[in-house]
Amino acid sequence: MTTHSAQTTTIIPKLRDLLPAHAVLATNEELRPYECDGLSAYRQVPLVVVLPENVEQVQAVVRLCYRHGVPIVARGAGTGLSGGALPLANGVLLSLAKLNRIIEIDLHNRSARVEPGVRNLAISQAAAPHGLYYAPDPSSQIACSIGGNVAENSGGVHCLKYGLTVHNILKLKVVLADGEIVTLGSDACDSAGYDLLALFTGSEGLLGIVVEVTVRLLPKPERTQVLLAAYASVAAAGQTVSTIIGAGIIPAGLEMMDQLAIRAAEDFVHVGYPTDAAAILLCEVDGTNEEVSEHVATIRNIMLAQGATTVRTAIDDQESALLWKGRKAAFPAVGRLAPDYYCMDGTIPRRCLPQVLDEIEHLSKEYDLRVANVFHAGDGNLHPLILYDANRSGELHRAEQFGARILELCVRVGGTITGEHGVGIEKLDAMCVMFQPTELTQFFSVKNAFDPHGLLNPGKAIPSLHRCAELGAMHVHRGQVPFPDIERF
Amino acid sequence: MTTHSAQTTTIIPKLRDLLPAHAVLATNEELRPYECDGLSAYRQVPLVVVLPENVEQVQAVVRLCYRHGVPIVARGAGTGLSGGALPLANGVLLSLAKLNRIIEIDLHNRSARVEPGVRNLAISQAAAPHGLYYAPDPSSQIACSIGGNVAENSGGVHCLKYGLTVHNILKLKVVLADGEIVTLGSDACDSAGYDLLALFTGSEGLLGIVVEVTVRLLPKPERTQVLLAAYASVAAAGQTVSTIIGAGIIPAGLEMMDQLAIRAAEDFVHVGYPTDAAAILLCEVDGTNEEVSEHVATIRNIMLAQGATTVRTAIDDQESALLWKGRKAAFPAVGRLAPDYYCMDGTIPRRCLPQVLDEIEHLSKEYDLRVANVFHAGDGNLHPLILYDANRSGELHRAEQFGARILELCVRVGGTITGEHGVGIEKLDAMCVMFQPTELTQFFSVKNAFDPHGLLNPGKAIPSLHRCAELGAMHVHRGQVPFPDIERF
Repeated sequence: MTTHSAQTTTIIPKLRDLLPAHAVLATNEELRPYECDGLSAYRQVPLVVVLPENVEQVQAVVRLCYRHGVPIVARGAGTGLSGGALPLANGVLLSLAKLNRIIEIDLHNRSARVEPGVRNLAISQAAAPHGLYYAPDPSSQIACSIGGNVAENSGGVHCLKYGLTVHNILKLKVVLADGEIVTLGSDACDSAGYDLLALFTGSEGLLGIVVEVTVRLLPKPERTQVLLAAYASVAAAGQTVSTIIGAGIIPAGLEMMDQLAIRAAEDFVHVGYPTDAAAILLCEVDGTNEEVSEHVATIRNIMLAQGATTVRTAIDDQESALLWKGRKAAFPAVGRLAPDYYCMDGTIPRRCLPQVLDEIEHLSKEYDLRVANVFHAGDGNLHPLILYDANRSGELHRAEQFGARILELCVRVGGTITGEHGVGIEKLDAMCVMFQPTELTQFFSVKNAFDPHGLLNPGKAIPSLHRCAELGAMHVHRGQVPFPDIERF
Repeated sequence: MTTHSAQTTTIIPKLRDLLPAHAVLATNEELRPYECDGLSAYRQVPLVVVLPENVEQVQAVVRLCYRHGVPIVARGAGTGLSGGALPLANGVLLSLAKLNRIIEIDLHNRSARVEPGVRNLAISQAAAPHGLYYAPDPSSQIACSIGGNVAENSGGVHCLKYGLTVHNILKLKVVLADGEIVTLGSDACDSAGYDLLALFTGSEGLLGIVVEVTVRLLPKPERTQVLLAAYASVAAAGQTVSTIIGAGIIPAGLEMMDQLAIRAAEDFVHVGYPTDAAAILLCEVDGTNEEVSEHVATIRNIMLAQGATTVRTAIDDQESALLWKGRKAAFPAVGRLAPDYYCMDGTIPRRCLPQVLDEIEHLSKEYDLRVANVFHAGDGNLHPLILYDANRSGELHRAEQFGARILELCVRVGGTITGEHGVGIEKLDAMCVMFQPTELTQFFSVKNAFDPHGLLNPGKAIPSLHRCAELGAMHVHRGQVPFPDIERF
C-alpha cells in the first residue's frame, strides 16, 4: 500500500463536507473501477474519487485541492488510449460523468451548449431531429464524452473533411487550477486576444478542467456513398489516396486496411471483404446528390487507374453500413488474432504512406511480431496494431520497442507521435524525440502560466527535461535509435 | 522630443556592430516612414529601425535587446489596421522586410516554406505554375506579408470556406524573447504537445518573432462562378445569407454592400452595380464543374425566394472579375465620399446580421455621421466604414464614439470586437468590455510564459487591469455604455 501524507489523507473528510455522500468514493472496492482508462497496461488506484454534480461543486473541489496542494486528475468516460486519465496515488480523481446535461441547442447559430460528461454520440442524437450533427466521430463515440474529446483534441473517420475537435468547438467554460472560471472563445467565428481555446484543446487536462463546451453543429449531408477498392499492393492503395486528394476531392472518410486486418475483420463480421487483397480502401463521399455522383465517378476512375483489382460502390445506405461494419469492427477483430495488441497512433505526411508502411513491414520481421494496419489514410494518421502475447516472456517488451521504432519513423519523415490519442503517460519518451529542450521549456512555461503549482494531471503529456536528458544519455551509450523501454509510471 | 535613457541610446552603436551599415536606420528622415502602420491616426517615431537580412541577424538583435532590456516592435509590410506595428519611442522597430525568400514549394505535401517578409500574393503566384494557391486573401494581399498575416491571424474574402490564417499554416519557426528559436507545429496534420502554433497565430507580435512560415497550398478549383443579387432591404439580403448557409452550401465568398457603398463603388469603377438597391450580395462558388452548376442554381433560387429584385450570374471569368472589381474597390471608393473614414471590424453570429445592421443605421443618425457597410456577410464579419472629416471640430471624436458603440453592440449579441484586423493599439479599451479580469489575468500569464520581461510589442493587444479598472470606474460614475474615447498612446 502507498503511504499518504497527512495532507492528502485529511482531504477526504474535507471533500465530504463539500459534496453529497454518494459523490465521494474512498473504499478500495469503489476506487478499483477508476484505476485505469482505455490504456489498461498502466494502473493506479487513486486516493479518492469525486463525482461533482454541477459546476459549483467542481469549483469547490478544485479550490480545496489548490489550498491543500493536492493534485487532481480529471476523467471523462475513461476511453482514452494513452493513459491521460491514469490516477495518482496521492491525488483526487475528479470524474465529470455527472455533468451530463445538454443545456441548449441553438438552431440559428447551429451550435449546442453541453456539459463535459455528455457522450459524443448523444450530441448528434439530440441534434438529429433538426437535421444537424456533431462531426468529429472517434471510434469510441458511443461511450467517450465531449470533455475528454476536448482534452485529447479527438479526431475520427470524418476528420479528414470536417477537422478535429478544435475545428468544431466555439467556446469553452473552464475551471482553472485555483478554481476561477474563464470563458475561452466566443459564439462568433473568431475571438480577440490569444487563442486560448485552441491552446486548451488537446492539453490533456494539464491546463484546467472543462465544465461546459459549445460545439458547432453541421447540417446532415443530403447523400452519403461508400466505395470499397481492393489492391494487390499496399503501395498502390497508398498512391490512390494521394491521387484522390491531389484531384481536389476531400472525401468525408478515406480509410485503409491491410491484409491481416481485412482477414480478421471478414472472419469476424462476414461483410464480403476481398480476403486475398493486399490492402483495401474504404472511401466515403458526402454532399449534395449531384456532387456525390460526380465525386464517386471520379474516385472510381482514379481507383481503377491506380490498379485497383475491384471497386465496389455501395448502392444504398444498407450496403454502405455493411462496408463500414468491417472497418468499425477491425480493432476487436484483430484482437481475436492474438491475446494482446498494442495500438499505435502516429501521423505522417500523406505522401510518405507507401514508404512508411513498407518500413513497418520490415520492422515486423525484425521484431518477429505481426502487425495489422487499420487507419485514417486520408490524413496520414496511422494505427498499426502490434500483436503479441503478454504471457510469453519478452513479447510485451518487444512490442513496446517495435512501437517506439514506429513513432521514431513517423518523426523522421516529418510527422508526429500522436494523431488523436494524445501523449498521456504512454508517449512521454517519444516527446523527447519529437521536441528540442527549447520547445519543451516553452511548454513548461505555458503550463506554469495556467497551473503554477503543477496540481492538474501532473506527470502527463509533457516530459521533464531530466527524463529526456536521461533518455538522450542512454542513446549515446548504446548508439541506438532513441527509444528504450517506456518507463512504467 | 522624447528623452532616451542611456540604456536605449547606447543600443544603436551595438546594433551597428551586429548588422550591415545599411540595415540600421537612425536619422529622423530614415525613421519617419516607420512612424505608423495602416492605422495612421496613431504615430510614433521609433528609436531605431533595423532591417536584418537573415534569421541569425534577427536572433542577434533580439538577444542584444534582451540583455539590455530594450523593447522591440516587429513589423511586416505595415498594412495592419489596428496599429499593431506602431513603434515605441524607446524601442527597436524590427522590420522583417528583407527576409523575403520563398525557400521551398513542396508539391507532394502541398505546402510552401517561406520567410515572413514574403507578400501574401507572391506565395500564390509562385505556386500557380503547379495549379496551387494559398487561400487566405486579405484585401491588402498585394502588399501585406505572411509574417504579418500570422501575427494578425488574417482572413479575407475566401476565409468563409477556407478558414483564417491559423487554418492554413502547418509550421512556424519563431525567435523567442531571449533569442532562442522554437519550431511550432509539424509537416503532418497534427502535432503533439500544447497547440502553440494556434496560440502564436494572431498573438500580434507579443509572444515572439516569426522567421519562417510553412503554409498549406490548395489546388485551384476547376471552376469559379460569381452571382450578384440586389435587394430592396438590407434585412432580405441578410436573411439570404443565413438561408444559403442553412442549405448546407459554403460559398467561397459571400459579401454584402449597402447602398452607400454600392453607389460609391459604381461611381468609382463603373461595373454596372444596381445603384437603386438597398443592398447587394456578391456570392462566389467554386469547385468542380458539376458542383458549381448545382450550387449556382440552388443559390439563385434562394436569392429569388428571399426577394432579390435582380440576380445576375457572371457568364465567364471576365464578368466574374468585373463583379468583384466593385467590391475590391469599395474601400477607396468610399474614401472619395468624405475626407476621412474609420474602418471598423467586428464579428457577430450570422443570425444577428439584420438586427445589427439596423442598429448601426440608428447609431448613424444618433451620431450624425454617414456609414457605409462593406463586409464578409457569410462569416458575420462586419466592416462598417464611418465617414467623417477630421478637420471639422469634434467629428473624429464622434466617429470614435460611434465605432466604440458598434463594437459594444457586437459583444452584446455574442460576437467579438475584431474579426481580422486585430486589437493592436486601437481596441485595447474594447478588450476591457469583451473580457473579465480572470481572462485578462490568464492572458498576462501566457504573455509572461513567452516574454517575462515584456519586451515584445509592449502595450498592444491586451490591456492592463488598471486600464480596464479605470474604464470601469468611469462607467459607474457616468452610467454610460462602456466606451469612452480611445486613449491615445
